[in-house]
Amino acid sequence: MPADFEAMWREIAPVGRNVATGGYLRQPWTSPEAELRAWFVEQCEARGLCVERDGLGNLVGWWDVDAEVEQGGAPATTGRRDHPTRRRSDAVLTGSHLDSVLEGGAYDGPLGVVSALAAIDRMREHAVVPRRPVGVGVFVEEEGSRFGLACLGSRLLTGATPWATARELRDRDGVFLADALEAQGLPGMAPDHVDLLAGVTTFVELHVEQGRALVDLGHAVGVASGIWPHGRYRFDIEGVADHAGTTRMEDRRDPMLTYAQTVLAANEAARLAGERATFGRVEVNPNGTNAVPSRVTGWLDARASSVASLEALVERVSARARERAEGDGTTLTVTAESVSGEVSFDPDLAASLAAGHAGGDWPVLPTQAGHDAGILSAAGIPTAMLFVRNPTGVSHSPDEHAEVPDCLAGVDALAETLTRLVS
Amino acid sequence: MPADFEAMWREIAPVGRNVATGGYLRQPWTSPEAELRAWFVEQCEARGLCVERDGLGNLVGWWDVDAEVEQGGAPATTGRRDHPTRRRSDAVLTGSHLDSVLEGGAYDGPLGVVSALAAIDRMREHAVVPRRPVGVGVFVEEEGSRFGLACLGSRLLTGATPWATARELRDRDGVFLADALEAQGLPGMAPDHVDLLAGVTTFVELHVEQGRALVDLGHAVGVASGIWPHGRYRFDIEGVADHAGTTRMEDRRDPMLTYAQTVLAANEAARLAGERATFGRVEVNPNGTNAVPSRVTGWLDARASSVASLEALVERVSARARERAEGDGTTLTVTAESVSGEVSFDPDLAASLAAGHAGGDWPVLPTQAGHDAGILSAAGIPTAMLFVRNPTGVSHSPDEHAEVPDCLAGVDALAETLTRLVS
Repeated sequence: MPADFEAMWREIAPVGRNVATGGYLRQPWTSPEAELRAWFVEQCEARGLCVERDGLGNLVGWWDVDAEVEQGGAPATTGRRDHPTRRRSDAVLTGSHLDSVLEGGAYDGPLGVVSALAAIDRMREHAVVPRRPVGVGVFVEEEGSRFGLACLGSRLLTGATPWATARELRDRDGVFLADALEAQGLPGMAPDHVDLLAGVTTFVELHVEQGRALVDLGHAVGVASGIWPHGRYRFDIEGVADHAGTTRMEDRRDPMLTYAQTVLAANEAARLAGERATFGRVEVNPNGTNAVPSRVTGWLDARASSVASLEALVERVSARARERAEGDGTTLTVTAESVSGEVSFDPDLAASLAAGHAGGDWPVLPTQAGHDAGILSAAGIPTAMLFVRNPTGVSHSPDEHAEVPDCLAGVDALAETLTRLVS
Repeated sequence: MPADFEAMWREIAPVGRNVATGGYLRQPWTSPEAELRAWFVEQCEARGLCVERDGLGNLVGWWDVDAEVEQGGAPATTGRRDHPTRRRSDAVLTGSHLDSVLEGGAYDGPLGVVSALAAIDRMREHAVVPRRPVGVGVFVEEEGSRFGLACLGSRLLTGATPWATARELRDRDGVFLADALEAQGLPGMAPDHVDLLAGVTTFVELHVEQGRALVDLGHAVGVASGIWPHGRYRFDIEGVADHAGTTRMEDRRDPMLTYAQTVLAANEAARLAGERATFGRVEVNPNGTNAVPSRVTGWLDARASSVASLEALVERVSARARERAEGDGTTLTVTAESVSGEVSFDPDLAASLAAGHAGGDWPVLPTQAGHDAGILSAAGIPTAMLFVRNPTGVSHSPDEHAEVPDCLAGVDALAETLTRLVS
């Protein structure tokens, strides 16, 4: 009898948790995240799921009834199953990610993985015999908290980002992605790379809602219609380092001033347009109390309801920043680090999943957050997302939360969704 | 024949230099700074100066003619002289510091030390036999770049900061001062601590000018009248971490906005009053691109021509920050980390040093930069400072510079000053 939802949740709760803040530090290819991936493999083995891994650390545990029957005997439900991969077709993939933002919450990512494992248990309790293979996937570096490119695992899997580009990415300590992987015993994307998405024709990701739409609508579960276009833009502002005491204010070329005005301009532009713009990360050189900085680098996270309005938002912020830079005598360079276009999930799939439930139809709503589901959808795989109610709407914070009854409703909803898809 | 000014300058030029930026990283109690202190001891030995050290790493090399004569024979000019400290009285101390700000310049500090050694050579060339002992001092952590408290070495020596307070200071990595010292084999201030200032009745510090007053006045050398009051104030702004995509702008409590407004307010307040206010250092938590920060901490460096105007400046900035925090739903705490009152150097000493030179009187001018000279002066030791022209005025930057002829004029001026004091 594998661990149920609440037991699994308790098992992973301490992993990567900062006891001082309650925040999670589950950065990709670090110990806490490796521990979570090992835990996931154990959970798959406890359920008799066949685990496939790739050279990046992406994982899928397959419930593959045909394969089991071919190997002779009844479908296995426990034990290690590392049999060679067979060609799979018309498979349904679910799952999410296990990494967190720096000082993030417990639910963003892990809720989808744990719920997927519990949903398979629920389907088996109801004696569902799937006509299609069902996989539970874990994608690496969904948050981009280490190498700056969100959904890196799914981008590489779908080819949205080539390996030749990704391997040269560096983290804040200057470590190359390829070296970070090697330190974890992972070869990266070798020519004989296992394609974990081969044969996958439907993807369903369950995720904690990162807003309060479901609270307002009075539903525990909803279905996503799509994802706003969004991107990360690096603002490099170069000035001239100088003494903070002796340099007259009028003789300075202080990039902190340009940065400060840009932060306020971004906030104003997003508020006026009903969009989102955030400077949550900044690096200052030399970052000394008694020195005018030589350089300030800020990262703009921008999101809008259409590609055109996202471009307009970034241009408004950049224009205000350039104007201020001119006055400050600093120089500004804006670099788009990652931009994701609009994602519309398969509308027929969303409608069919949302309709006809005992408790009534599930609401269909958009989100401003990026997800691996967006990458897979953009790659042409029919994709859906389920959201679980978040009482405060807070996310990317230790205060991120979902009530247990809502989590269990999410497990039921995912089991019901997968059952519809594989029956 | 000890190394001359230019040879000494070449010897230390590579120590702690970041070859990529040209900036210096000579943080106290790190390898580069320890290397410079070892170099200083060698230079003292090459000149027959008797080196005294304390448990913090402060050093003084004494040219102590009486002691030499007492030991028999003519004054020694070379060789290791670690004879037991004798009671000294009415001594003249010169020197400066060897540490730098992060990515600082070559001149701020080392120019005063190297010039002092060269000045002793010059006096000996001119057969000066001093009637008072002359010491060349090196004070540790003048910049406060590691433990946040400027002039830490001289503050501890004069008792301006008690050891019980200082030993608990932590650097950015959380290392206690006492542990940083121990790692360098230094015991800190033990009860039998050597008082390097015992018997010192005059202090003269030569320093590169950190502004362009001497350029405008057309002089290579000037004398300081005093130091503006100045301080460092920590602005802790607490908000609420949240998702940068899904959280509506109007639902945020974003401390980065409060910080940005405070930076601009500080700049405006200082410009209007002809004073100085700088935010050169900021720390953000969690500092992730896709998260509204939970906390932003900025450090205000403020300087003004009087204590009352410094207090008014800091209050104006704090009031604007509080006002903005209220609007942003954040909370602000302002903590004064170090505040130095106004320093007026001994006016008779300054006037007597400035007057009656072959090339005309040296100009007397104030400075906005803190120095160990300010700490010693506040402790009641008659103190003077000499400034050497800086063609751009730039300091605390790799671009900090002084021309060789001006440096040599500084050596001559210091030798002349010391000769006047000890004749």
